[in-house]
Amino acid sequence: MAYDPDNIFARILRGEIPATRVYEDEDTLAFMDIMPRADGHLLVIPKTPCRNVLDASPAQLAAVMNTVQKLSHAVMKAFDAQGVTLQQFNEAVGGQEVFHLHFHVLPRHEGIRLRPPGQMGDMALIAEQAEKIRAALD
Amino acid sequence: MAYDPDNIFARILRGEIPATRVYEDEDTLAFMDIMPRADGHLLVIPKTPCRNVLDASPAQLAAVMNTVQKLSHAVMKAFDAQGVTLQQFNEAVGGQEVFHLHFHVLPRHEGIRLRPPGQMGDMALIAEQAEKIRAALD
Repeated sequence: MAYDPDNIFARILRGEIPATRVYEDEDTLAFMDIMPRADGHLLVIPKTPCRNVLDASPAQLAAVMNTVQKLSHAVMKAFDAQGVTLQQFNEAVGGQEVFHLHFHVLPRHEGIRLRPPGQMGDMALIAEQAEKIRAALD
Repeated sequence: MAYDPDNIFARILRGEIPATRVYEDEDTLAFMDIMPRADGHLLVIPKTPCRNVLDASPAQLAAVMNTVQKLSHAVMKAFDAQGVTLQQFNEAVGGQEVFHLHFHVLPRHEGIRLRPPGQMGDMALIAEQAEKIRAALD
């Protein structure tokens, strides 16, 4: 399937629409999910175009996974989490809604289930959580 | 956290216990999940020890993701699936049950939800599905 250069994450990368960014390097960007299923739920994407894991290059996959690892440690520190769940969806029936490769990083705590998908978060709270993640990365 | 060399996937790698293998290369192994949440549900692991994404090396992450990509295409072909869901769990509260890095690869079809976790599959059916995946890889 073709890559749509007007998908919402491509527009975030171009700065056309806002996102609560927590980390970036030459190859990847991490920003907060606006429908968080856990406190600190964030997304990691490559800066270059690809639709999902099915068409990603080895370099895109390697760069994204290195940032996923870095952010997994950061969210565990920021939220005193004891674990992390990763989810990654490919094509609509696979659960994908935005067609630019992204990994979900979900900090986890004992006895706390993931919230149902599709519920908008409190943007002030998300901004606070982003600040904690940035501090944990320093 | 330390790596336990007697975890079940380490024992599979050493050939001490059986698994329904579908693919291997120098660095990775793919085999069927015995509690499949979808037809064709498989796991991809590195052949070298690491507990999960938190302690994996860049080389382990890159090798595993390349095999995840290869097997994602294979299961889509084998089961005429329209998408793939990836899940990866880190530490017990993150959903991890076996403490050797693994990615779940779940072929998806329109209108079919993932089955609940923890239900043993039919081993004859799993063997049939593995054969289809091997054929799709050729």
